[in-house]
Amino acid sequence: MAYENRISFDVRYSETDRMGIVHHSRYYPWFEIGRCAFMERTGVSYAEMEKQKLQVPLTQSGAKYYEGAKFGDTVTVATTLSDLGVVRVTFSYRVFRNSDQKLLAEGFTKHAFVDDQLKPINAKKKFPDIWQSLKALMDGQGS
Amino acid sequence: MAYENRISFDVRYSETDRMGIVHHSRYYPWFEIGRCAFMERTGVSYAEMEKQKLQVPLTQSGAKYYEGAKFGDTVTVATTLSDLGVVRVTFSYRVFRNSDQKLLAEGFTKHAFVDDQLKPINAKKKFPDIWQSLKALMDGQGS
Amino acid sequence: MAYENRISFDVRYSETDRMGIVHHSRYYPWFEIGRCAFMERTGVSYAEMEKQKLQVPLTQSGAKYYEGAKFGDTVTVATTLSDLGVVRVTFSYRVFRNSDQKLLAEGFTKHAFVDDQLKPINAKKKFPDIWQSLKALMDGQGS
Amino acid sequence: MAYENRISFDVRYSETDRMGIVHHSRYYPWFEIGRCAFMERTGVSYAEMEKQKLQVPLTQSGAKYYEGAKFGDTVTVATTLSDLGVVRVTFSYRVFRNSDQKLLAEGFTKHAFVDDQLKPINAKKKFPDIWQSLKALMDGQGS
Repeated sequence: MAYENRISFDVRYSETDRMGIVHHSRYYPWFEIGRCAFMERTGVSYAEMEKQKLQVPLTQSGAKYYEGAKFGDTVTVATTLSDLGVVRVTFSYRVFRNSDQKLLAEGFTKHAFVDDQLKPINAKKKFPDIWQSLKALMDGQGS
Repeated sequence: MAYENRISFDVRYSETDRMGIVHHSRYYPWFEIGRCAFMERTGVSYAEMEKQKLQVPLTQSGAKYYEGAKFGDTVTVATTLSDLGVVRVTFSYRVFRNSDQKLLAEGFTKHAFVDDQLKPINAKKKFPDIWQSLKALMDGQGS
Repeated sequence: MAYENRISFDVRYSETDRMGIVHHSRYYPWFEIGRCAFMERTGVSYAEMEKQKLQVPLTQSGAKYYEGAKFGDTVTVATTLSDLGVVRVTFSYRVFRNSDQKLLAEGFTKHAFVDDQLKPINAKKKFPDIWQSLKALMDGQGS
Repeated sequence: MAYENRISFDVRYSETDRMGIVHHSRYYPWFEIGRCAFMERTGVSYAEMEKQKLQVPLTQSGAKYYEGAKFGDTVTVATTLSDLGVVRVTFSYRVFRNSDQKLLAEGFTKHAFVDDQLKPINAKKKFPDIWQSLKALMDGQGS
């Protein structure tokens, strides 16, 4: 089975808006937390990847919102790698409220593999260890 | 022709991230600026709508990123109303860099019409003036 | 000894700016995380306080920055209650980098006790249990 | 008279929190908008300064809050340069609500002049043109 990273944290007061719920834009930094935690499972942290001049800027993002997270909630982000190409990678996310396991939102992000000059690179060739680790996690051999 | 709202502003330093470009999540507050400016054209501001207990939380959001906006850039958000139902509304956005009119990103947001308790409402019935104004803007009779 | 709350978390990518360090404004939401965790020790969570119509908006804030936190760092916020009046409260914060216990920043926030209409209230009289708990934590009898 | 930069903008929905007012931390990015606009008056933009490897990270920040800005408000940030040393600079800010000119908040930020490696530099020597421009603005000869 494909590896799924689960990471939990409390909603921050500063993430809420005047509607009393977490602002929709703030789910994307939450997805990013999940993505970073997922990528660490390759054995190379996100910060370390960037030092090695591998960056993964977004080319697309999307989310569906079912119920607003609130201050006082603890939430869990479940992250999976849903597609891995040589120059591109897609992650999927689900956000649960811990108290009752209600699915609050889900989403995805698509990324390009680029170098520190934001030039596209073939990650499979240039970073074979990281790329193979991601592949193994997606295929369920790495968890 | 359908009404298109255009609003311009400078990229804020605080919107950039360590990659040196605007963080992908920050395009959504930009879309919101466009949406608020659009909705004011109904003659009722977003803030006033909320006082009248009409809220429009997101049910979905999405964006495609073509080139990262940078600190020093002035950008324009062009907003149109792409779909209007009795309980639902969809806006579309394009973000341009002013210096060369390059399209940096585009996206959409879907919203439900709800009251101050976040209960769904039929906006066409409950807020006929606002709803008809939105319709006229979409159909190109309001600009 | 006065109670000190310590809470740790990872720096988020979205908190960094183009200088490569955490944006100075983002230490204030970190202080808030510390403050919320501190206040929960009264037995009443921050979210619950607000339901009871006790709010604590800021009247003043300040921070000194010694070294920039970076993506990849885990940090700890140490929070103490440095002054408690009947209508006012002051918290102090220190932010450490976990890897070497380096003090990265410190700061404070001053707050007014107000009701849900943002009107000042005498918290000692109106919320004696919460107020006495805060006092005990400050005086070191509550930890 | 010393030069004062004034810049106006609308409160963003995403800047509010569940208390219904602008989150206290978001005044600091507003100060930054004022500071960037001020520094452009030297003839060299903030973005251009960073290209020339002059950065001005914060060493200290502070704010007093008198009344919460709200969504629907247009605000003005008035920025002055209150102190200029060879390795250090201090800016002061006042935030007004446009509708009634009420002072909502005021604050300051202290900065070090550093290079792109975050090493302290003598700005008066290394960037004499920028430094003298700042001096003239502070002394009231540049406006």
